[in-house]
Amino acid sequence: MREDIDPADAERVDHLPSVRDEADNIAEAFRLSVASAINERDLDRLRALTRSLHEADMGDLLESLDGDERRRLIELLGDDFDFTALTELDETVRVQILHGLSPRTVARGMRGLDSDDAVYILEDLSEEDVAAILEHMPAPERVALLRSLDYPEESAGRRMQTEFIAVPPFWTVGRTIDYMRETEGLPETFYEVFVVDPAYRLVGAVSLDRLLRTKRQVLITQVKTAHVQVVNAAEDQEEVARTFEHYNLVSAPVVDDANRLVGVMTIDDVVDVIQEEADEDLRALAGVGSDEELSDTVAYTARSRLPWLVVNLGTAFVSASIISLFEGTIEKMVALAVLMPIVASMGGNAGTQTMTVAVRALATKDLSTHNARRIVSRELLVGLFNGTALACLLGGIAALWFANLHLGFVISAALVLNMAAAGLFGILIPLGISRLRLDPAVASGVFVTMVTDCVGFMAFLGLATWWFGGP
Amino acid sequence: MREDIDPADAERVDHLPSVRDEADNIAEAFRLSVASAINERDLDRLRALTRSLHEADMGDLLESLDGDERRRLIELLGDDFDFTALTELDETVRVQILHGLSPRTVARGMRGLDSDDAVYILEDLSEEDVAAILEHMPAPERVALLRSLDYPEESAGRRMQTEFIAVPPFWTVGRTIDYMRETEGLPETFYEVFVVDPAYRLVGAVSLDRLLRTKRQVLITQVKTAHVQVVNAAEDQEEVARTFEHYNLVSAPVVDDANRLVGVMTIDDVVDVIQEEADEDLRALAGVGSDEELSDTVAYTARSRLPWLVVNLGTAFVSASIISLFEGTIEKMVALAVLMPIVASMGGNAGTQTMTVAVRALATKDLSTHNARRIVSRELLVGLFNGTALACLLGGIAALWFANLHLGFVISAALVLNMAAAGLFGILIPLGISRLRLDPAVASGVFVTMVTDCVGFMAFLGLATWWFGGP
Repeated sequence: MREDIDPADAERVDHLPSVRDEADNIAEAFRLSVASAINERDLDRLRALTRSLHEADMGDLLESLDGDERRRLIELLGDDFDFTALTELDETVRVQILHGLSPRTVARGMRGLDSDDAVYILEDLSEEDVAAILEHMPAPERVALLRSLDYPEESAGRRMQTEFIAVPPFWTVGRTIDYMRETEGLPETFYEVFVVDPAYRLVGAVSLDRLLRTKRQVLITQVKTAHVQVVNAAEDQEEVARTFEHYNLVSAPVVDDANRLVGVMTIDDVVDVIQEEADEDLRALAGVGSDEELSDTVAYTARSRLPWLVVNLGTAFVSASIISLFEGTIEKMVALAVLMPIVASMGGNAGTQTMTVAVRALATKDLSTHNARRIVSRELLVGLFNGTALACLLGGIAALWFANLHLGFVISAALVLNMAAAGLFGILIPLGISRLRLDPAVASGVFVTMVTDCVGFMAFLGLATWWFGGP
Repeated sequence: MREDIDPADAERVDHLPSVRDEADNIAEAFRLSVASAINERDLDRLRALTRSLHEADMGDLLESLDGDERRRLIELLGDDFDFTALTELDETVRVQILHGLSPRTVARGMRGLDSDDAVYILEDLSEEDVAAILEHMPAPERVALLRSLDYPEESAGRRMQTEFIAVPPFWTVGRTIDYMRETEGLPETFYEVFVVDPAYRLVGAVSLDRLLRTKRQVLITQVKTAHVQVVNAAEDQEEVARTFEHYNLVSAPVVDDANRLVGVMTIDDVVDVIQEEADEDLRALAGVGSDEELSDTVAYTARSRLPWLVVNLGTAFVSASIISLFEGTIEKMVALAVLMPIVASMGGNAGTQTMTVAVRALATKDLSTHNARRIVSRELLVGLFNGTALACLLGGIAALWFANLHLGFVISAALVLNMAAAGLFGILIPLGISRLRLDPAVASGVFVTMVTDCVGFMAFLGLATWWFGGP
């Protein structure tokens, strides 16, 4: 929740509609005020409405406006519009806004940004668009941005901020503080000061609280931490996020292959990565592309979801062909057709439980060769245990429903077999996929449900054929 | 990656085995050295091995040891053991270790901790255990911990650190810095200084970088930010995480109902919450309890997963009873039994895709009344679109397989119907559940697959009965 603590401030904005409604969305009244200010080109009112907006709220406001209003809002506000707000938008919306603006306007807006935000905005655009924008920027910034864009996608080099404070080891704490007081153009926020040698190689870091608690005459080298978690610029952002999470970091220096300091990664970028990675796993397990967004069109969404459905159609045919082996048995005893989806569905659910746990444990590195054997046998036993418990229930109901005790025994045995297979393959499949250095979240689901469907139909119909006699 | 930058340091630990292996797990050689040092009670070696370990690495080391070694490691190291490492453990392991130690040892270890870590360690223990430990702690700390434990579980009050720096508005920047230089017992890490009135009500905050960049004689009240994102102590941690993420915060003041400053939440706690919440959604969608851990036993795991499987058994019977309505038709045309799982399974997959997107969008507040109508119609259209595309494929193959063109038409029509239902109910069900103020991640899965199974069987078998004539 946002609180206006300063009463003077609160009074000043008193006559403005409140930004958010009860459900924490952009309030309709606020959106309408902004839209009418845009349409009437009432710049004073527009400035008053948006002046105290946090960049994240400005982002939400932009998303709530329609395409043309977005562009005109940015053009009207001119230098009063903080381009950082664009980093808060869905990619689709951001690209659409950037295409609507002239390269000169974009370049002008980007000048005030931290380098990581600038890269974030540029990286979704085509090479020509990037070139057109960079043309309007001063040479030093252009070079710095091009260097960042040279790093691979989703690497630390793309996410890092190239503005940071580095001082030589022979400076005192006092001199460092004076330097910060007197220098213009320091990064907007920072949490530590780096200590570098003349070749700009990192020799340590000092957190700001440490700096503030130390007497002025102390040498910086005496208070620096030598053990610093260092990130390599080429490292994948997921790897970086894991380091931040593991060591509870707020910022970390980024170095190139020669161990020279080239930037700093901060926690706010990492939080987004952590959220994205967890989301990616979740979507991958359901067969939804990691880049799908709510703002996507019907055609785009449908096309991106289709491939996984086609794969699923293929595996569904595999299980259908197993059923077709037993057509004769089903013809003689149609109750089998009624009951067979139950066995398959129970196995599918148990397999998904195991697989979900395995995929996340692999992603967080909790599951490794170290404990794989124990977890595999645990999952097999859990499958057998729950399979037996549910078999009593399912067998009993099936026997009563079709007044056939034998049918109860057959379906019970089939369920135990399928639940054991679900536990076993629910963990072995993700383990195997990750051993092949592929992402287990993406492909495990298809294989696990294929196995539980096939084993389910095969065990139930096979046992029934054997027990009640073949066709 | 951890880098020992100081060459002197590197030399000193040169003869020690490296902590991690190539797969980034605790190295077997390191684990064995520690275990043998424990068993030989070789305190010097044990200290040398563990001295430079980060708390997170110590946590991983503890998890790799067996139960008795864990306890003895902590007892041998005594005051050299940093209890913060316990916050890095699985709950099961942590509770087991705490039960093995005497309340006096635990109380001694807790004294050095930040209050949020102390609360995190205590909150999983029984009331008697907590009381026994607190008995051995100094009164002020005991009272502070009890006050934190009084807040509801998963609230900001539980996660906040009660150590912070607050200064009156009339202090200068210089006096504030001098205060921090001269005062003992300041919090271990902090990112901002709070400004409070005599009643300890929050009037603003100053980030450390701002403080460092300002001249000594400036009044603190002149550099403070008045617009501060404030967290209420009773607020749910998930709500707090969303605020941190939305506004890119690193720390935020926590106030009580009277707006008095009572603590500070920092990003490291929030990162864990973000990870946990995403994990919870993922597990809930698969029917796995949010508190399940890899270290759990077979019996515990099986019992915790059983309820969802029983629910699924119930819904499986619902679809089985729909199939049983058409026993006569199946008896006459057994191909229907072979093909019917395909229609149900495709619907289930498409429904899961839509539902996953909806559940996450609801969790991140991207989906709201604002855009619900548009997303519902998008999902329905995506279902119809992909349904039609896949129906051509499925219909063609089915017609060829059973050499029956009519069968191809029937299954095509059934698939389009079921895919449309999947899109529609895949979003309406989570929306409805969240409207009832329940967690859509927990219950959506059961209902969505029940709907797609039922619609799938009903549409396919019903259309077939009508087309080919009743029993």
